[in-house]
Amino acid sequence: MQFGSDNHTGASSQVLEMMVSANTGYTAGYGNDDWTMQAVVALRKVFECDLEAFFVPTGTASNSLALSCMVQPWETIICHEHAHIYLDESTAPEFFTGGARLKAIAKGVGKISADLLNDYYINSAGVDFPHNSRVGALSITQASELGQVYTPEEIKSLSEIAKEHNINFHMDGARFANAVAHLNCTPAELTWKSGVDVLCLGATKCGALCAEAVIFFNKELSENFIHRRKRTGHLISKGRIFGSQFVGWLKNDHWLDLATHANAHAQKLAADLSSVEEIQLAWPVEANEIFVIISKKLFKVLKEAGGEFYEWYDEALPLGRTLKEDQMLIRLVTSFATEDQHRIDFINVINQFYSVQ
Amino acid sequence: MQFGSDNHTGASSQVLEMMVSANTGYTAGYGNDDWTMQAVVALRKVFECDLEAFFVPTGTASNSLALSCMVQPWETIICHEHAHIYLDESTAPEFFTGGARLKAIAKGVGKISADLLNDYYINSAGVDFPHNSRVGALSITQASELGQVYTPEEIKSLSEIAKEHNINFHMDGARFANAVAHLNCTPAELTWKSGVDVLCLGATKCGALCAEAVIFFNKELSENFIHRRKRTGHLISKGRIFGSQFVGWLKNDHWLDLATHANAHAQKLAADLSSVEEIQLAWPVEANEIFVIISKKLFKVLKEAGGEFYEWYDEALPLGRTLKEDQMLIRLVTSFATEDQHRIDFINVINQFYSVQ
Amino acid sequence: MQFGSDNHTGASSQVLEMMVSANTGYTAGYGNDDWTMQAVVALRKVFECDLEAFFVPTGTASNSLALSCMVQPWETIICHEHAHIYLDESTAPEFFTGGARLKAIAKGVGKISADLLNDYYINSAGVDFPHNSRVGALSITQASELGQVYTPEEIKSLSEIAKEHNINFHMDGARFANAVAHLNCTPAELTWKSGVDVLCLGATKCGALCAEAVIFFNKELSENFIHRRKRTGHLISKGRIFGSQFVGWLKNDHWLDLATHANAHAQKLAADLSSVEEIQLAWPVEANEIFVIISKKLFKVLKEAGGEFYEWYDEALPLGRTLKEDQMLIRLVTSFATEDQHRIDFINVINQFYSVQ
Amino acid sequence: MQFGSDNHTGASSQVLEMMVSANTGYTAGYGNDDWTMQAVVALRKVFECDLEAFFVPTGTASNSLALSCMVQPWETIICHEHAHIYLDESTAPEFFTGGARLKAIAKGVGKISADLLNDYYINSAGVDFPHNSRVGALSITQASELGQVYTPEEIKSLSEIAKEHNINFHMDGARFANAVAHLNCTPAELTWKSGVDVLCLGATKCGALCAEAVIFFNKELSENFIHRRKRTGHLISKGRIFGSQFVGWLKNDHWLDLATHANAHAQKLAADLSSVEEIQLAWPVEANEIFVIISKKLFKVLKEAGGEFYEWYDEALPLGRTLKEDQMLIRLVTSFATEDQHRIDFINVINQFYSVQ
Repeated sequence: MQFGSDNHTGASSQVLEMMVSANTGYTAGYGNDDWTMQAVVALRKVFECDLEAFFVPTGTASNSLALSCMVQPWETIICHEHAHIYLDESTAPEFFTGGARLKAIAKGVGKISADLLNDYYINSAGVDFPHNSRVGALSITQASELGQVYTPEEIKSLSEIAKEHNINFHMDGARFANAVAHLNCTPAELTWKSGVDVLCLGATKCGALCAEAVIFFNKELSENFIHRRKRTGHLISKGRIFGSQFVGWLKNDHWLDLATHANAHAQKLAADLSSVEEIQLAWPVEANEIFVIISKKLFKVLKEAGGEFYEWYDEALPLGRTLKEDQMLIRLVTSFATEDQHRIDFINVINQFYSVQ
Repeated sequence: MQFGSDNHTGASSQVLEMMVSANTGYTAGYGNDDWTMQAVVALRKVFECDLEAFFVPTGTASNSLALSCMVQPWETIICHEHAHIYLDESTAPEFFTGGARLKAIAKGVGKISADLLNDYYINSAGVDFPHNSRVGALSITQASELGQVYTPEEIKSLSEIAKEHNINFHMDGARFANAVAHLNCTPAELTWKSGVDVLCLGATKCGALCAEAVIFFNKELSENFIHRRKRTGHLISKGRIFGSQFVGWLKNDHWLDLATHANAHAQKLAADLSSVEEIQLAWPVEANEIFVIISKKLFKVLKEAGGEFYEWYDEALPLGRTLKEDQMLIRLVTSFATEDQHRIDFINVINQFYSVQ
Repeated sequence: MQFGSDNHTGASSQVLEMMVSANTGYTAGYGNDDWTMQAVVALRKVFECDLEAFFVPTGTASNSLALSCMVQPWETIICHEHAHIYLDESTAPEFFTGGARLKAIAKGVGKISADLLNDYYINSAGVDFPHNSRVGALSITQASELGQVYTPEEIKSLSEIAKEHNINFHMDGARFANAVAHLNCTPAELTWKSGVDVLCLGATKCGALCAEAVIFFNKELSENFIHRRKRTGHLISKGRIFGSQFVGWLKNDHWLDLATHANAHAQKLAADLSSVEEIQLAWPVEANEIFVIISKKLFKVLKEAGGEFYEWYDEALPLGRTLKEDQMLIRLVTSFATEDQHRIDFINVINQFYSVQ
Repeated sequence: MQFGSDNHTGASSQVLEMMVSANTGYTAGYGNDDWTMQAVVALRKVFECDLEAFFVPTGTASNSLALSCMVQPWETIICHEHAHIYLDESTAPEFFTGGARLKAIAKGVGKISADLLNDYYINSAGVDFPHNSRVGALSITQASELGQVYTPEEIKSLSEIAKEHNINFHMDGARFANAVAHLNCTPAELTWKSGVDVLCLGATKCGALCAEAVIFFNKELSENFIHRRKRTGHLISKGRIFGSQFVGWLKNDHWLDLATHANAHAQKLAADLSSVEEIQLAWPVEANEIFVIISKKLFKVLKEAGGEFYEWYDEALPLGRTLKEDQMLIRLVTSFATEDQHRIDFINVINQFYSVQ
């Protein structure tokens, strides 16, 4: 019953094996090794373009380094109320950018829509410079922190507004693999073909042990990346550790297989849960996260039975939806390692709980 | 018809004369002069306590330096959606604090209420450290940017919540004089007696030329202030310039006389405007700012007649209130220098406009 | 006997009067006033070029803001071992630049020479990026902190090296007026005509009360200055206070008259001191600072007689020169306000001291 | 002939195997896993005290995070002219500390001596606060960047000065294992028993793939470490990757065996080189780095023969020692993976070179 987080697992066998095989022999340090170069080549092939890519150890570093290349310290980054960069990365974005501001919009909806973004521009964005902080970047998460997936059309409509206002477009792709697996489209269509400037592609949550890539489709923005990565302590000396993981992860669409596995389990679990009258899904299940409203009693029973998952913020409910006194919101996450038995056990506990009552 | 801003004037005669008289002779530099010391003594008398006070050239420096003593870089400062520190000081708070975050609450109301603050704590403040950013300080503006004045009781109710959560309490007093003049209470009651830790007392908007004081009632917080002021470039070499202005400003309650003058004109102007059927006050007038809903046609006529004032953000309207297609919101500010003729001319233009129609 | 610092005085009459006359009437805030614009025009005339100029309250702010426009946070600023930005401005340069580094060279000499700068480049400057920090700017002080004046030829020879290495050239001109007064050349020849990109022109030390200008000859570097000035709290609301001081200071070569006065007194004092066998000048006197080696006994006597001046660091001695056990180094500073009587009294104390012995 | 760097290898078998074995199963994220806890326990045993330890991916992060806990942003860190934090970590220390300053001393000697440190305090450290930057920390590297090892007595004499001046004492232990292996003393004697407050213990250079520990003997300094690590992006989600490497590295004194191996090869190589008349060792060989003065011709020959090593800065020579026109300084580094054949081949090339001549 392991639904706590997609970072509670180790690496997939293929990723681990590649890392082990990279351990042998001498190579240059600091990313000047063959594994790192192979990984960049693999990313160029996957994304069908001449991108720049850099590897870093964490999603927080990836997002914040990317954003530091995209805004001035006196500018503002627009993001979602539930964005990981806003809620779960301390004040890393402020630190890396030298003090730029985060402005969260889109309360109670799963994704930032073009309408909401336009609305912000018309009603809220200050234009009295230098007193007001100019908007410098838009950041979205794919798949979103509420388990929703942006379609290429949605991304395009956002990037058009971004272009109109001359701001850079960032995508936090901690679960990008899950989004690609969910949609019938290419990685290119989901990113640069839809106007994304920089993608933070996370492998860690979906099968790697510790490997994140900052990918610049807009290569001008990468101009100072190597200086920023070094002075933030994110230039690894034995670069083969990241390169080899990415090589293993991307090889033969392994990354998409892993994500498809996770998504499929999420769909099945959602279907099972939907069949229980007393509990409700808070959001449509599109990637590998499931938000469910359950009773506090059931929560206790599931935890006692060994269920691994987290209670979630009430604020993550859709606009207008509220919990009853005895209810709570929980988040279930499936991963590349999820097994049928996890789901079966989980549903059994639930069914047994309601059959007894 | 000068209602543009309370910083469109010079200094009052008394303040200017004191500054001129301070120009003579030799003194030590960097605030180690008699004028500076006299100013501190005067502040201690006005606030009836053994405070620490430091002088700086701008309100932005004052607020940001104060806040940098009150939060860690990984913490969050709660403020009002229309706070000057949030909207009008670029990303200075982020810069001075080393990247702390501003979180704005209280949309569409004139002041932060205890209920709203509690609500934030119950529903939104993250507690999963170090992932979430801990709340480190609360900042309110007295009088508020929407012209509202916090009563001692309101301040006390906020400081109780602040104490409960172990956060520091900051007051932006750019128009503190106007607030004191409006209420029947002492400066001490409005600040440390109600739980305020640090007050940024602005003299510039109310009769000085360039003089702001950061006042620490909670003296522990001032421990590193002199280092912070120096390395942000705010330690003036010829400190007499600030000291003398404050001495002149505080002498014989001059500061309150100036504020009373400004407030009285605001009340009269508000009364005059209220008598015109076609225009509405957006907020009760308590200090020296008046927010008025007028027609776009009238706006144009007033401007053409030489009226000095600013159009204001729609978002500054009270919650639920909206403008009609042909309306707009404006802000009028009175000052220590406002003359009857300014008001008379302004109302005349309005009356003439409606009489013609 | 006032030789403590050129910031122990107030403003000159002409400067003060202009400031007082600027106090009347309404003007726009934040530097959008006539006085500010007049000051910029006056600077363009004085420097014979289409410069950009911005006003700030302190020399520390001026230098650090300028440097923040000239280097990236991962770069290094080369300066003199005794540079004010290195020794006397806390870590302001690091703060404003977002963490760039200061590297001090030229120990025991009064000025940075082309040979020393070349030497640094050949032997010390790292080129293994991003591990090493690239040199981004050169900063010199005119007149130097040891009272030495750079000639146009010396400045040119430094700027040629700067250009060769593609680094920006900054001049701290806290005593620029004294340097111009000392040399037979124009302000233009001492700056942009010799390759200086940005000059921090200080008026405070030489007759103003609180007024510093950041002057961009290389206008591209000023691109983001207004944002930087705002978010560091250095945009004054009642801008007339700086504008008027500069207008008064520059009018009819008043600034050069003031500097000439200070320099002349320095020369006379130096001559008087040189005539005393027992004491030695540590450096040639070129501007308004005099470094003198005296006995500890004489120091005590001078202080007891009311002499205002500072003991100075041994390290400020010329290379190879050391103090005897009973000697110390002192610094004497003359100013626009220095009177003959100051010098006469000072020399009298000295002569009396030695006549008694 | 692999003498390029101790980061040109992968991990030792024991470390790699532990990492692989840690890959299986579910664990909590963000360092709340058993492996991480076991690693901390192992460190406490090795250092014989109740230390706090935190794991991060790079030496730069380790050093800069540690220093950010030890100084205020307006303070100065004293380090060696050749310190890694000074020369090879960009401006990371400035970034992490919020703009503290590095001051390098001890030019041309292999280690900072108590005399040099005292000398700095007596002659150079400013005390006019807040103008001058106060010294907040001392940082030494063990073994030093010039291959020298500080004895416990030397460390004690430095820590006494540090205590006297109330500054914190940091040790960069990127090659700490090599230092312990070289001396006949315990890890405790080399650190907290000699007054070190914080040790950055590097495993990467000596057998791990990517694993560094920040160890607080002075636990008060660690108060905010978790916030600093998170907001700099150095909190890894799958913490087992670091924990397991440290468990493997420390188990059965594996780390010391690896270091002993590297040191032994360094000694042998040094002996071999010393026997060649035409080349000289620049520094005594104590750890795993060898600095050698060779002819430019030999350099070319060695490189053409496939020798992996770096030319080094002339400035790294001992004080007073200079290179002849046709000479250069090189650095050779041995590692846990160095084989006899590497040395034999290297010496053969040299011998052959001189036999031919």
